[in-house]
Amino acid sequence: MIHGVVPPVVTPLTAQGALDEASLAGVVDEQVAAGASGVFVAGSTGEVALLSDEVRVRALQVAVSAADGRVPVLAGVVDTGTARVVRQAERAEEAGADAVVATPPFYIAPHPAEIARHFRVVAAAVSIPVVAYDIPSATHVPLSASVLRELAGDGAIAGFKDSSGDIAGFRRALGALGDVPALTGSELFADLALELGAAGIVPGLGNVDPQGYVRLSDAVARGDLPAARAEQERLIRLFRIVEVADRGRIGATAAALGSFKAAMWLRGAIDSPRTSEPLGALLPSEIDAVGAILEAERLL
Amino acid sequence: MIHGVVPPVVTPLTAQGALDEASLAGVVDEQVAAGASGVFVAGSTGEVALLSDEVRVRALQVAVSAADGRVPVLAGVVDTGTARVVRQAERAEEAGADAVVATPPFYIAPHPAEIARHFRVVAAAVSIPVVAYDIPSATHVPLSASVLRELAGDGAIAGFKDSSGDIAGFRRALGALGDVPALTGSELFADLALELGAAGIVPGLGNVDPQGYVRLSDAVARGDLPAARAEQERLIRLFRIVEVADRGRIGATAAALGSFKAAMWLRGAIDSPRTSEPLGALLPSEIDAVGAILEAERLL
Amino acid sequence: MIHGVVPPVVTPLTAQGALDEASLAGVVDEQVAAGASGVFVAGSTGEVALLSDEVRVRALQVAVSAADGRVPVLAGVVDTGTARVVRQAERAEEAGADAVVATPPFYIAPHPAEIARHFRVVAAAVSIPVVAYDIPSATHVPLSASVLRELAGDGAIAGFKDSSGDIAGFRRALGALGDVPALTGSELFADLALELGAAGIVPGLGNVDPQGYVRLSDAVARGDLPAARAEQERLIRLFRIVEVADRGRIGATAAALGSFKAAMWLRGAIDSPRTSEPLGALLPSEIDAVGAILEAERLL
Amino acid sequence: MIHGVVPPVVTPLTAQGALDEASLAGVVDEQVAAGASGVFVAGSTGEVALLSDEVRVRALQVAVSAADGRVPVLAGVVDTGTARVVRQAERAEEAGADAVVATPPFYIAPHPAEIARHFRVVAAAVSIPVVAYDIPSATHVPLSASVLRELAGDGAIAGFKDSSGDIAGFRRALGALGDVPALTGSELFADLALELGAAGIVPGLGNVDPQGYVRLSDAVARGDLPAARAEQERLIRLFRIVEVADRGRIGATAAALGSFKAAMWLRGAIDSPRTSEPLGALLPSEIDAVGAILEAERLL
Repeated sequence: MIHGVVPPVVTPLTAQGALDEASLAGVVDEQVAAGASGVFVAGSTGEVALLSDEVRVRALQVAVSAADGRVPVLAGVVDTGTARVVRQAERAEEAGADAVVATPPFYIAPHPAEIARHFRVVAAAVSIPVVAYDIPSATHVPLSASVLRELAGDGAIAGFKDSSGDIAGFRRALGALGDVPALTGSELFADLALELGAAGIVPGLGNVDPQGYVRLSDAVARGDLPAARAEQERLIRLFRIVEVADRGRIGATAAALGSFKAAMWLRGAIDSPRTSEPLGALLPSEIDAVGAILEAERLL
Repeated sequence: MIHGVVPPVVTPLTAQGALDEASLAGVVDEQVAAGASGVFVAGSTGEVALLSDEVRVRALQVAVSAADGRVPVLAGVVDTGTARVVRQAERAEEAGADAVVATPPFYIAPHPAEIARHFRVVAAAVSIPVVAYDIPSATHVPLSASVLRELAGDGAIAGFKDSSGDIAGFRRALGALGDVPALTGSELFADLALELGAAGIVPGLGNVDPQGYVRLSDAVARGDLPAARAEQERLIRLFRIVEVADRGRIGATAAALGSFKAAMWLRGAIDSPRTSEPLGALLPSEIDAVGAILEAERLL
Repeated sequence: MIHGVVPPVVTPLTAQGALDEASLAGVVDEQVAAGASGVFVAGSTGEVALLSDEVRVRALQVAVSAADGRVPVLAGVVDTGTARVVRQAERAEEAGADAVVATPPFYIAPHPAEIARHFRVVAAAVSIPVVAYDIPSATHVPLSASVLRELAGDGAIAGFKDSSGDIAGFRRALGALGDVPALTGSELFADLALELGAAGIVPGLGNVDPQGYVRLSDAVARGDLPAARAEQERLIRLFRIVEVADRGRIGATAAALGSFKAAMWLRGAIDSPRTSEPLGALLPSEIDAVGAILEAERLL
Repeated sequence: MIHGVVPPVVTPLTAQGALDEASLAGVVDEQVAAGASGVFVAGSTGEVALLSDEVRVRALQVAVSAADGRVPVLAGVVDTGTARVVRQAERAEEAGADAVVATPPFYIAPHPAEIARHFRVVAAAVSIPVVAYDIPSATHVPLSASVLRELAGDGAIAGFKDSSGDIAGFRRALGALGDVPALTGSELFADLALELGAAGIVPGLGNVDPQGYVRLSDAVARGDLPAARAEQERLIRLFRIVEVADRGRIGATAAALGSFKAAMWLRGAIDSPRTSEPLGALLPSEIDAVGAILEAERLL
């Protein structure tokens, strides 16, 4: 289940800030049509940290319904502590998720042994697979290869998603995981991760250009590295959309997610570029700059 | 309401890990009897990050009932994003909290302007006061004096709790806040914070020695700095209980909260030293070491 | 020797960037006249990291000559590794320093036991006292209370200078050091550090207002805390000069040291506000803003 | 000149801690014989931060003499500030270095514009090429792609060595540098860096297994990625020698450099495993563990 291109879909909002169910269903459809092997709902790109529990569940239901069994739906169950993640995971299972994606506990400062216990408790609480998620830029809690080795050996985790940016660490993790599949969250070295043995990729930028990462993944699969490299270089150029916003006014999260949604809106994939509170919005001129990059890359 | 000694009470658990309501009511009673001006439920010391929403609400109800109007009850509403904190705050208000204590959004990387917006949205959602909580060791998101100035000026926040450890920053915050009261979360320089103009203190160690911080606070209030200094030095010695645990086995949060609960258990204040999943427990020998420090300080 | 107000004097440069010996001698004279108990040459405020060995030695010789036995001269011997610091310390002793001030090794990632060994080797290499210097914002290597305890107990260090900003840690260090004197490098809580038992203060801002910190120190010494507090509050306002520079153009070091030198230049204490390569200069408008703060504080 | 395998050679010491010139000459010879395209003296692996200026110069002279024009010799000129690096670079040029390798200024907190100025001043001071060196784990000062673009465009730098561990950043740097060659310092993804277009590699582990990285580099050059991958995987297993030391006793630098030297000593490449003060030594049992890994990898 955990392989191929599994985009972390955005959570489209209406101009008033409510969940835009129709747009979300459309995004899922578009991804499936483009060749995605799954969709990941309520990941970091899906603004999981900013969504209420009700919206998380509803977004998941909409995605499950839209996927309609064609591809599995993974659900982010990001929360600070074990009991909280267990509740998120139970709700996700109930809403039809095929797997849940959980980080180590954060806000607290856990020991690796506590991180391992966390995942074991979560895994025991649900009957769907648990994917361990390493995103230290958000959690400030790294997930080590030795914890992964232990959890993979136990069967406590069924997958690993790496958004650390550390490819040496990813390589170490691949060795530690054995048969348990690993996904990279990197938009910028998806090609390399696949060459090294990643089972799949989870690129936020895949929301903007669904075909691109599928082509990249297919190229690696058939051993055509020049094609993979060229596709990756093109996607790296496209990723410059995250740099258009004035960072003296909005934060890094707002700049990145705002540019993804702006690009999707310009391409007609969603009805509004709006992001969740308290993220600042891109200015019209910044949205224009996103559009210019899309045009330069022939995506508009 | 926001002044004096406002201990961040622990959340006592039974040996099986359930909320121990009787122990929690006893802790609140003990604090009120010792002279606390309020109690802070579901703070970092109260394991807020590890409690389910249900336990947060129930603990708050128990504390409100135990306080019985004698002192105000502040409720921690720690969560990653604005919509989530709003829900926490609404539930806290409904459960009888007199004020809520909220951090900036975390997991995301917010701009100061987004932090300010976050607090404004939370403040608008409830009719009880909002206290802004700076604890960058947990959130990795600092709260600046300029944001505090803006929020205090607007009336969006009714108080500030500083757990940054940065006394120069606290001093700057005092200047920025004007009449809005500031609390320090430091166990180790409560005396200095009060001398500088803090309205109150929120010491986790106050769970272990409720009288100590009240004596310290009273000493500063009557201008008896030598007495305050002596009390503080004694409490600094007592604080060494957080260092007894072997950190090769459990994390910093487990070591600190575990030692507080172990000390309270040894003193008969709670029925079990248990902490929430996934925190590792102190070893019996470590609990003995806590006991030895309590004896040395004549608290046992 | 290590007590009272020991300003970390700037290293005045000519407009062409050479050491301005006359201005440096004047600065030392001014400090002695204002009541300084010593001067600290080639500290972080003295741009030690940016001075060649030749200029470090020459600046020290000039200061020793200007002090002329009236007050001791401490010399910064900041360098990355033990052998390098030993050479710096030997040269400083030869140039007449009364003590040297050394950080832990940096660039490397030392274990506390290696930090302790470093100081022991440096102390064995010279016959003048060694002061241990904790400035993790520069070195990224903290100096712990347990290392200080060990070094103080051994007699390897004759003093401690704390520029960590962490007053709880300073308090712990005071306990660990026993009779070994501790200095704070803080401009913003010099009053509190002295109240807690600091033997002296090393405020970079003392270059701008030599009398201020002497008054503050004297006030604490005679137990007049309201006077100390008022003086400290005034100096905190004055410290806002470090915030005038546009940080989109120059770094934090350039902004702070540039504002100190600009203020001294405006007050006639040095002949040029120039700082060392590669620091960017304050703009004329920024120097004006420094002047406006000096005027508001009646220092111009 | 800046291409191929350019190992950062260790600085062999006698058992008494002096420079072991014969061993250093032997190491250079061994590297040239193994197919190195150059040697890098006084890099981080060469303990540059811990060597006196005299030893830096003497080591360089020995290496230049041993290389005897067969391969170029690059010299690390690591120091905190511009004037200091200029002096290091002048001495290196005088001692016969073919190029110098310099980091951004550190200890201070420079702005990118100040980092750029630093490199321009250094480049203007010597007539040999300057290679910019990004090693934020040591300097805590990252070197951005935009600064590299500017310096490469100006001709101020003739090369870039990346030891950041961030392959997405390395990719960005490759784009920014144009024709200016880039080297990776990674032992763990040398294969990937070469595939992406690195001109060469600077692996500390190459001291232990000189042939390995040459084989890896050759395999990438002839397009045999499976062979490159296999070689890299073998070298990753070998790199586990850096993990044998008990980190409760010595630091990360001591553990890594100590294991390299221990392995070289076991293989007869140098006469003593000694490292510079203040680094702690590996225990005999830890040296045995290094030996066991060497044996498992058939290097002993």
